[in-house]
Parts: sequence; C-alpha cells; structure tokens
Amino acid sequence: MTSPSPSPTCRIKIINGNTCHPMTVQIDATAQAIKFPQTEIMTVQPETGPESLESFYDEYLAIPGILEQIIFDKNSDAFVIACWGDPGIEAAREITTKPVVGIAEASLYVANMLAAKWSVVTTLHRVRDMVEKTVQKTGLMDRCASVRTTRLSVLDTESDRLNTLKELTSISQLAIYEDGAEAICLGCAGMSGLAKALEDSLGVPVIDSVAAAVKMAESLVSLGKMTSKHLTYRAPERKLIRGYADHFQAENL
Amino acid sequence: MTSPSPSPTCRIKIINGNTCHPMTVQIDATAQAIKFPQTEIMTVQPETGPESLESFYDEYLAIPGILEQIIFDKNSDAFVIACWGDPGIEAAREITTKPVVGIAEASLYVANMLAAKWSVVTTLHRVRDMVEKTVQKTGLMDRCASVRTTRLSVLDTESDRLNTLKELTSISQLAIYEDGAEAICLGCAGMSGLAKALEDSLGVPVIDSVAAAVKMAESLVSLGKMTSKHLTYRAPERKLIRGYADHFQAENL
Amino acid sequence: MTSPSPSPTCRIKIINGNTCHPMTVQIDATAQAIKFPQTEIMTVQPETGPESLESFYDEYLAIPGILEQIIFDKNSDAFVIACWGDPGIEAAREITTKPVVGIAEASLYVANMLAAKWSVVTTLHRVRDMVEKTVQKTGLMDRCASVRTTRLSVLDTESDRLNTLKELTSISQLAIYEDGAEAICLGCAGMSGLAKALEDSLGVPVIDSVAAAVKMAESLVSLGKMTSKHLTYRAPERKLIRGYADHFQAENL
Amino acid sequence: MTSPSPSPTCRIKIINGNTCHPMTVQIDATAQAIKFPQTEIMTVQPETGPESLESFYDEYLAIPGILEQIIFDKNSDAFVIACWGDPGIEAAREITTKPVVGIAEASLYVANMLAAKWSVVTTLHRVRDMVEKTVQKTGLMDRCASVRTTRLSVLDTESDRLNTLKELTSISQLAIYEDGAEAICLGCAGMSGLAKALEDSLGVPVIDSVAAAVKMAESLVSLGKMTSKHLTYRAPERKLIRGYADHFQAENL
Amino acid sequence: MTSPSPSPTCRIKIINGNTCHPMTVQIDATAQAIKFPQTEIMTVQPETGPESLESFYDEYLAIPGILEQIIFDKNSDAFVIACWGDPGIEAAREITTKPVVGIAEASLYVANMLAAKWSVVTTLHRVRDMVEKTVQKTGLMDRCASVRTTRLSVLDTESDRLNTLKELTSISQLAIYEDGAEAICLGCAGMSGLAKALEDSLGVPVIDSVAAAVKMAESLVSLGKMTSKHLTYRAPERKLIRGYADHFQAENL
Amino acid sequence: MTSPSPSPTCRIKIINGNTCHPMTVQIDATAQAIKFPQTEIMTVQPETGPESLESFYDEYLAIPGILEQIIFDKNSDAFVIACWGDPGIEAAREITTKPVVGIAEASLYVANMLAAKWSVVTTLHRVRDMVEKTVQKTGLMDRCASVRTTRLSVLDTESDRLNTLKELTSISQLAIYEDGAEAICLGCAGMSGLAKALEDSLGVPVIDSVAAAVKMAESLVSLGKMTSKHLTYRAPERKLIRGYADHFQAENL
Repeated sequence: MTSPSPSPTCRIKIINGNTCHPMTVQIDATAQAIKFPQTEIMTVQPETGPESLESFYDEYLAIPGILEQIIFDKNSDAFVIACWGDPGIEAAREITTKPVVGIAEASLYVANMLAAKWSVVTTLHRVRDMVEKTVQKTGLMDRCASVRTTRLSVLDTESDRLNTLKELTSISQLAIYEDGAEAICLGCAGMSGLAKALEDSLGVPVIDSVAAAVKMAESLVSLGKMTSKHLTYRAPERKLIRGYADHFQAENL
Repeated sequence: MTSPSPSPTCRIKIINGNTCHPMTVQIDATAQAIKFPQTEIMTVQPETGPESLESFYDEYLAIPGILEQIIFDKNSDAFVIACWGDPGIEAAREITTKPVVGIAEASLYVANMLAAKWSVVTTLHRVRDMVEKTVQKTGLMDRCASVRTTRLSVLDTESDRLNTLKELTSISQLAIYEDGAEAICLGCAGMSGLAKALEDSLGVPVIDSVAAAVKMAESLVSLGKMTSKHLTYRAPERKLIRGYADHFQAENL
Repeated sequence: MTSPSPSPTCRIKIINGNTCHPMTVQIDATAQAIKFPQTEIMTVQPETGPESLESFYDEYLAIPGILEQIIFDKNSDAFVIACWGDPGIEAAREITTKPVVGIAEASLYVANMLAAKWSVVTTLHRVRDMVEKTVQKTGLMDRCASVRTTRLSVLDTESDRLNTLKELTSISQLAIYEDGAEAICLGCAGMSGLAKALEDSLGVPVIDSVAAAVKMAESLVSLGKMTSKHLTYRAPERKLIRGYADHFQAENL
Repeated sequence: MTSPSPSPTCRIKIINGNTCHPMTVQIDATAQAIKFPQTEIMTVQPETGPESLESFYDEYLAIPGILEQIIFDKNSDAFVIACWGDPGIEAAREITTKPVVGIAEASLYVANMLAAKWSVVTTLHRVRDMVEKTVQKTGLMDRCASVRTTRLSVLDTESDRLNTLKELTSISQLAIYEDGAEAICLGCAGMSGLAKALEDSLGVPVIDSVAAAVKMAESLVSLGKMTSKHLTYRAPERKLIRGYADHFQAENL
Repeated sequence: MTSPSPSPTCRIKIINGNTCHPMTVQIDATAQAIKFPQTEIMTVQPETGPESLESFYDEYLAIPGILEQIIFDKNSDAFVIACWGDPGIEAAREITTKPVVGIAEASLYVANMLAAKWSVVTTLHRVRDMVEKTVQKTGLMDRCASVRTTRLSVLDTESDRLNTLKELTSISQLAIYEDGAEAICLGCAGMSGLAKALEDSLGVPVIDSVAAAVKMAESLVSLGKMTSKHLTYRAPERKLIRGYADHFQAENL
Repeated sequence: MTSPSPSPTCRIKIINGNTCHPMTVQIDATAQAIKFPQTEIMTVQPETGPESLESFYDEYLAIPGILEQIIFDKNSDAFVIACWGDPGIEAAREITTKPVVGIAEASLYVANMLAAKWSVVTTLHRVRDMVEKTVQKTGLMDRCASVRTTRLSVLDTESDRLNTLKELTSISQLAIYEDGAEAICLGCAGMSGLAKALEDSLGVPVIDSVAAAVKMAESLVSLGKMTSKHLTYRAPERKLIRGYADHFQAENL
C-alpha cells in the first residue's frame, strides 16, 4: 500500500438514522471491520432527530436530519442509511445522483441469496407493521417467513448486549421452528455486531444489516452506477420550503 | 330541536399538507360547502414545509409541520390530512387518540362504493410511484384501473383552473376508455372544487378527495370512534428528540 | 319537525338481508340511534328469503327479495344492505342510480381508518370462506389480520345476547393476541348493538357494521354521488325473465 | 364390450343457466358429441330466470331456478352449470353430495394444461368485471393474459353465428398479438360449438367451455369423488325460507 | 356406434419421474384401475435419474430421462408426468404437440372442484419450498390452506405402507383442524393407492394425484386438444446440445 | 503477485450456462474488468448442454453440466451461474455450502437499489414466460415494469453486436416510454459488455447481469456467509441416481 495510487476508490458515508452516539460507534466498528481495503467509511449521525427510531413518529422526525447529512456531503461515492426501515430513502435518492442503500433492503437481498425463506427479528412489538411495510416496499414479502418482534427497545440493544443476545436467540428459534425461516435478518441497526454469535448458536445464516449494506454500496460504486433520474427519483421541483434553512431549498441542492 | 345544545357536535381540523395559502382557502371552501350543519371546520396549513408536495423530498419535509398542527390542537374531534399521499398519517395516529383521515384513503373508499374499477388522475408524471404506493397502503390496488399522471404541477392546479380542467378531462378520458375506469379520483388537494365540472363532462363519478375526507371524519366522530392504541398506533416511546422544540418531545405529547 | 324546512335531506332505506323480524327491529334501533338529525331511516326486510343467512344457499335465495325492496322503492336517497356478505350488492347497483352501501364494506373502511390491521369476528365456522370472499371483493385482504368464526348461529346472536357477548369476547381476544388484530369488525348484522360492550372489555375499536353503513350512506348522499353507470353497473339489458313478476322485468326497472 | 353391464356408468345433468331454449339445444349437441360412450347427458334449463345472463342482476335471478334443477334431480351422478360465471355454484355444492362443475372453471383448467397464458373472450363490454371476478374465484388470475369483451350479447351468439365467429376471431387476435394469449377460452355457453372453426383460423387452442365441463364431470364421477362436506359446502342450516316452495326448504333438501 | 372401431381411442403414457420399479408398478396399478375402458395405459420409468425425487438436485437430474421417454415415443396420445412437482413439464410441452399433464396440477384442479380450500400433504420437511413453488406455478396458491410435510421419504411411502398411512392420517388431521383444509391432495406419486383408506378415516375428499392426472389426460385427448405452439411451448430452437445423444438434438425432435 | 500475501481472499467461479465458447470469453472479460483487486475469477462452461439457452428444454438439459462444474470444484469461495434464468440454482445451493449467485437475481437487486421500477429486456419472444417465472422466483415482480422480448437469439447477441445494440436500444425505449421503466436489466448473459453503450444512449441505468453477480458473490464471500443448510438447501438425500457418473451420486457430493 505504499503505491502512489492517490485516493481510495470508494468513500461510503453511513448515516445512522438514530442520534445515539454509542450506536453510531458500534455501526462504524461493524463497517470498518467488513469493508474492502480500498473502501473508506465515514459514519455520522444526524444533528436532529430521535435518539432511537421505534415508531412512525420517530422515523418521520428523523428524516430531515438524515437528508441533511447527504445535502452537506461533498465527497462520498455512496450513502448508507442505517436504520432498519430505510427512512427517507426515496427522498435521499432524489437529492443525490450517488447510490443510496438502505440497510433493510440490503439485508433482505443477502438473505434471499442464502435461504429459500427468512424471517426478520426486530425490536418492540409495536414496530411489526412498520417492518412489514418495509419488506413490502422492497417487493420481497413472498420470501418472508415471518416478522418476529421482541421486548427489546432500540436503546436496549445497545445498553444490554447480553440480554439482547438471549432474547434474539429465543425469538429466532421460534422463527426457525414455527415459521419455517432458514435465515434470520436482524431488523435493527442497534443489533449490528451480534450476527456471528447468533449464527453460532442458531445454525442458520444471520444477517448483519449494516455489513450487508456496506457490501451493496461497495458493489454499486464498483459498478459505476448512479441512481436513475428518469422519473421517480429526479431532483425535487423548485419551490419555497418554509421554515427550512437555505441548504434544504430545492434550488440549492 | 329547540334545545339550547350549545356547541357543535363535530369539530374537524383540516391540515393542508402544502403551505400554499390559496390552496388552503380553496380546501376550506370545499369543506365548508359540503359539511353537515352540525360540523365546524377549521382549515390550517403548517408553519413549515414546502409550498406544494410533488416529490418524496417534499412529502418528508412537510410531515413535521403537519404533525405540529395536531400537537398544537386542543379542541378538534378529528383531523383531516389534506394532501393526496396522506403524508405522515401513521405518525399522526400515534400522537392523538382522535380519528385521523387521509384524503387519499377517503376518496378511494368513496370510489369503491360507486364503481367496480376507478382510476386516480393526478399531477406530474414523477409522482406516479408515490401515488401507487399510497393506493397500496390502503390495500385497494386490485380495484384500481390505473394511475394517470399529467403535465400539471400542484401549483398549476391552483393558478390555472381552466387549463387544469382541460388537462384533467383529456387524461380522465384515457383512464375511462383505455384503462376501464368507471369513476375518477382526483389525486391532489389542489384539484378540490373541480369534481362537479369534470363529472358533468365525463359522465362518471368524479371524487373530490377533500369532500370525501370531511364525510369520513364526520362519520368517525358520529360513531364515537377513536384510533386503536393497541399496537401500531400507540403513543411514541419516550426519548430525546434532538433539535426539535419541546412540544415535539414524546413526553409532552 | 313542524319547521317549514320541507323535507329531510337524506332518506336511507336499510334492507335487512335476513327475514327475521327481531333482527330488523334491532338493526333499526342501531341505525336510529346513530343517524344524523337530518337523516330519515326506514328499515325493512324482504318478503321472501331465509330467516337468517349463513350459507351460500341462504345468501342466493335472499337476493331476489332484497332487490325487490329496491325495485319497490320510490323515495329513498340511498340503500343499505344489512347482511355481512353484502348479498346482491352488484345487482342492486345495476337497478338504481342511488348509492348502495353494504355493511361489510362499510365496516372495513371504518376499521381501516382506525387500525393498521383488523380481524372479522363472525358466526358459524362454515361461513369462513364466505367471509373471506367478501373481504377479497372489497380489495382489503392485505389489511385483514384474520377471519375468526364462532359457534354462534345468526339467530343465536339475536336470541341469546349474553352468550353471544361472551363468545365474541373470547374469540376477539384470540384475534387480538394471536393474530395481531388492532380492531374488530363484527361480521354479522345480528351482532348490531354489541360493539360498545365489547369495546369496553377488549380495549380496541369494535365496529358495528350497521352503524358504519349508515354513516357511509349519509356520506354518499351528502356528497351528491350516484353509482357509476358507465360499464359494470349500467341498467340490466332487457330480456324476458321467466317466472318473475312484472316489477322484476328489466323494462320495468 | 360384450358385457351385459346394464346401465351407463355416468349420468350428467347439464343445467343451462339461461332460459333460452335454442341455447339449451346447442349446449346439448356439444355435450352429446363430446361425451364418452358410457356417459348419459341430460341437458335442462331452469323454469325461472332470465333468457340470457349478462349482468349481475341476471345472474342472481337465475340462481334459484338453477338450484331447483338440482333439488328436483333424483338420478344424476354429477351436475354441470352451463353459464360462464358459474352462477350459484357454491350453493349447488351445499345442496348435493354429487360433484358440481362450472363451465368457467373447467375451461380454465383445460387452458392451463395447454398454454402458459390464456385469455377469456366473451360477450358485452359490461361483463368484464363479472368475468374477472369469476377467474379470481378459481384462483387462476396469474395465468390470465386478458379478459376481452365484444359487442356480442349472449343471444346474438345464438342468433347470428356468422357475425359471432367474425367478431370472436378479430377480438381473439387482439388477445393473442397484443396481450400475449397462447390459448383462448370462449367465455359464454352460447359460444359452444364454435371452438373448432376458431381454432382453425387462429392457430391456438380454443376451449369450448361446455365440452371442457363435460370432461371434468366425467372425470370426477370416474374418480368416485364427492363434494367435501367438511365445512364450507356442508348442507344448509335448517330455518324457514319465506316465500319459497317446500322443496327449497332446507329440511327437505 | 356399430363400427368395429379397431383401436383404443386414447393411449396414455405415464412416466414415473422416479426410477424406482415398485413405484412404477404401483402407479400403473392405480392408473389401470381408474382408466376408462377405451383408454390404454403404458407406465414407464426413465432409464436415467434418481430412484426417488425429494430435492431440487433429484428433480433436475431426473428431467433428461423423463424427456427421453417422450422423445422415444411413437404412439401415445398424451403423456402424464408422475412426480408431484411436475418436473420438466414445460420442456415436455415444447417437444411434443400431444397434451402433457402433471400429477400435481391435475390433483389441484380436482381438489378445487370439490372443496373451497385444500392442503397438500407430502414427504420430507425439506420439500416444503419445492411443493409451494409447484402450487404457485399452477396459479392456485390462494385456494391452498397449507403445505404439510412429514417424516416420510419417498421410498418409505412404498416400503412401509402401514406407517405411511398412519403418518398421513395424523398430518392430514392437522391440515383439516388447524389449517382449514376441506380436502387433501397427496403430494407424492408414491402415495398413489392410499387415497381411499385415508378418505374413509378422514371424512374429506383425498385426491390420488396419479388417478387425477389420468382423468385429465383422457379429457384432453377426448377434447382433441393439442398444446399451444404459439409462443412459450413452441419447438426448441435448433442448436448443438453438447454431450447429449442424437435423439436429444433439437433437429431430431 | 510475488508478494508474500498468501492467497487471494476471494475466488469466484463463473459458470456460463451456455456451452458457447465466445460467450464464455466475453463473460470472463466483463468479470475480470469489474472484479475487486483481491478477487480471482475463473470462468468455465459445462462439458454438456446446449450452446445457448432459449427454451425450457435448453435450460433443463444444461443443468446437469452446470452442476458438474460445482461438483468438480475444489477451491472456489463462491459460484456464479451465468444464464439469465438462474438454471438449477436451487440444486446448486444443495450441493455446496459456498454461496451461489444467479445473474438474474443479482441484476434485479442492483436495479431495485437504483430505480423505482425497471424492465427486463431480453432475447426471443418465446422466453417471455421463462423470464417472468424467473422474476417471480426472486419475489420482485411488483417492482418490474415489464418484460420486453426481441427478435434476438442468444447466439445473435454474440455474433452481431451492432444489430444487438440497435435492437436493444429501440426495445428499451419502449420499456421506458410505454411501460414506465426507470432502469433496464439486460436479460441474457450474451448481452454482457453492452450496458455502458446502452446507458449512454438511453439515459437510465442499464444493468450488466454478469457484473452485478460478480459483485454479489464478492459481497457474500466478504461477509463470510454460507448457504443455509437448515431445510430447503440441505445436501441431497442419498439414493441411487441411475445413469449418472459416480461424481453425481449423492454419497460422493
């Protein structure tokens, strides 16, 4: 690596959808460990938004801050939105030509290549409908054996790793033995880093969604692909956006 | 009926999703004209957000302002979100026990009771995917003959009513004669007030989505119904929401 | 009512699909209690047809009598077909330009506005397939958590209210805690009048389908809407209908 | 074949759903020509009901008369309902243990075994929704390339065979070259007898639905199968059926 | 019918997908017992391929041998592929104009005419996904109550009929009482011959898929139908097929 | 490569499903050009099977040869099956624990991350049904705007690049302007190498499926993932496979 080869070929900005710093650190650790040598990872969190996302209210309030991290960006080759719900991803694709990857969709594509049927195991019971809607948006509901929820809040997954592992193990076993799952997608960015331990105890592939998304982002950059600007994801129409700073105004994007 | 019964039985707040005042005025006029005598309508627009919503970016930036209008509210018996896309409706249902009606879903239910198949005729071509996702969320895609888009921006529908009517007529005829639509849903709050003229020229039911939503809101209030707080729509979990004012914090909702 | 205000603005005829008089009385009581002041309700039952509908055979034999109540009608502004199965509703829409509302579809629209997922709780186990077909016809199967059947015949729901309430409570709890329902639709006209008691014990919205249908009918009349006569629901083609009285002949409709 | 085996092994009663005698004669001719030697065909038409079925109103008024032909029957081993819409078939399955075959479902199964995708070509434009609902009930919508309607009334198909053939040819060509159909189902009992001529001119399989249903009925009888009485198709519950003759009462079935 | 009509009107070749001779004998016995008098049955097994098919690997390795039995054929009027998975059926339809029937699809059509919902009860747990894909290919998933697997390998079903019957009984009861099945499709050619005993103990129709397929083949031959050669099933394009004998080469088909 | 860095981290074997050498060379060129530095690509073609796959017959005869390339393999970390149809992929996943990627699924995941809706543009009209089935297997049909076929045989795509480019351009434009595609998936391995030129002329992302699959394989290897052996993809059951060489026998896999 003493070669003069000037710059890394792939700079990925990961945006933690949650404004919880320890989770941002954890996500970064997962990403740094799995990235290809030529990739540079920068993990950030929004300046505004909830500490953790576990309601539609949380998700919608997080989105302006997530988008701001893209608007501010000068150098990245691709973006990863790190919250299993891919909040604001369609808008993100409108405001940049660089590829944007959601950790939910990325983890489902990986699972789809490893198993005939998979389940998503995630946080609080209340998010079941949110998670099902996320799977439906990717178009992959037919391959989903079940969405299984737990008693774990998003912040629990950071603060009590041992209990998180225990709860994820027992609920994943229900997914496998009652619902027919042949792989498990961990449906929360906060669960990043636990896949290996779970895989060892469960005996089926367990997908770390942050790691999966890093690989998808590296893939899109390597393929030289940009987001389609033909119709749905073209740049936002220009108009006044009241109460938002200048950098949010469509003519400045 | 001689009773002094003091107050109106049903106070509905309509929140125009767009921060365009003439549209708010138009929406209010439609609503005041169609409401039952015992209903009181108050039409507002968010303090923050785009003048018109015609991209995912617009929609997501509009949602905090829409929700704020519910948070600030003290007296309403029901809320209508007046943007065909029902932006933020799941979050709205989390932060109030009062019924929340989206104009998109309301117009589809009305169409479903009048016609075997219907089409949505809406604004710019770029919103086709947004509109299809909205129909899918209601669960009614099977009854949808087509989504037809036009060259009309949202603000055009306010500023040039004559051209809007002309364009809507010709595109609706395509929906009827090529796609098999037996009724037309006007897929934009800005098209409110045009249904009667279109119906006369097209000869099939044309649904004004604002009017439809007022009726749905009156219905839910009259039935004494509240939003289910059992699982998906329970109040948001408490946590810090960075960069948002106190009234947005979950513990103050 | 001595006011000069000439006529009520909305006359709704409710047609009990079952020829069971106590049920007709019960349906009328529910409707009278929930109607808007300016609405006039008339509840009738067919002259021919089964006392209660709980098989396809019952449903099909009930339909001519149901349609006859529309054919005989001179003054109504809208019709409600009060049997959860909406028997004959497409034919009803062919023979009148006035809006026709089924209690099944009406209750599902109301549930859809209050809850992310709902279940239908209904009568005998044998009707499960009929009920599923009814939900499918509305296009709302994706939002249906489950169809739950009971040991209750239609006539039981009238004759033994206490046991009916008990059975509905326990089966609804299964729908809520095993199937993920966040609201309950009572899938039988005979269950009208029980929603409030059930709601109190279950803690989720419980929809009285007759009440929901009255609101939908009032809505359509207030909106000034007529059934689309463009294609599917145009008047029946003229031809001899053997063995039916003159008023059934297409040329007399 | 010298055995004295006395009686035919399979007696099929075909019930023309339409009370149009020439069509009954035509249906019988098709059936007699295609039946296996050991089959006995009896073709009847209801005593009550419309001359031809081309609206939901027609279909529902036809059903009591169709069911009566089953109730009156003493000897048949299987029944065929000969109207492409399979009117009343679920009720028919409730009131007899003998197999009941609809000509719509039968023709779709045959098409499904001959072609990857097929279209239904049928009568007046207004029946498109009825025909789509019939395909959906069988569960085979995914294999349906299109439903194509014509200017032909049901009675036209009997009275003007030459024009019927011409119209069916040109519309079937649209189904083949625009919609991707690889076989054609003729969606009306009145079109029975035309498949051969059409097949010669179109070059793809054309299914005569009456002929297909005779084969399905022969198959079920040969297999010794009875309709499942486990749940949906069990005998109707006993109750008073007002205004219907004794033989319609559930306790006499 | 006084003609000396020399030859049988219908010669059906049944190709056991498994190269297990006792199963071929059993399949032949079922077919000979159920065929119409004028039908001639010849049951064969491929020269190459697995003894039993219970993985995708088995299925794909079986297909060349199955197709060879069609290529070699000179006289048959129709073919039946006797493995519940209908392996290679699309290719079979490409290489002959004669009708080809799969035992899976045939059994589902029969079940669909007898019951509102049915389940498939089959062999080892690992084939669940294969079986679901087979049902999906026919387009009938909506009518499928469940796919239930067992501890029975395909060869077990031949070698230990008593235990097979016991296991099928208990698993079918789960399908009926937990999943709502109203009929059972036996999802393996090796289960041929057991339907009658199961039907007696379960009280719902049990479909022998080999018998069902014989009836479908007889039907198609009697109707004079050929496979559509319009698009999907036209003869394979000519090209070199390396490593395959001359009779497999497209120009010799 | 004299560096002590011991071995490449990722060895991918690409198996051209077609036994056409120039296509194998072309596929290899695409893969070598797009791979990460640390990846080693080896591109092979089966010893047996058709020169090109454009019928179900071709696909099924190709599968044993494709599987043999996996059976023979000693060193690869992942496999790519290079034929847009992913022939035999489920069986491939049964006979190795290493990840197996199909070029069809890989290209659809990439398209799904770049565009709201995409179309597959492919070879001869006859393969439309095969291609639709492939999309359905991935579960992504809802995101597919259309499948568009051409007059191009697979071998044409190799032998006449200029005409291929011209035909793909004009048909892709139909997909974009008539069907609403926002990206194009090239549905044939033989089209590898043409994406850049097409993208330049069409202005929307065009996916080279071989390149996409290389990235997916590199991703899975980098993530350290293995195929789930829990249920569907476990190793084939042991049994005699008649007529196949020893290395195909399950006990030798």
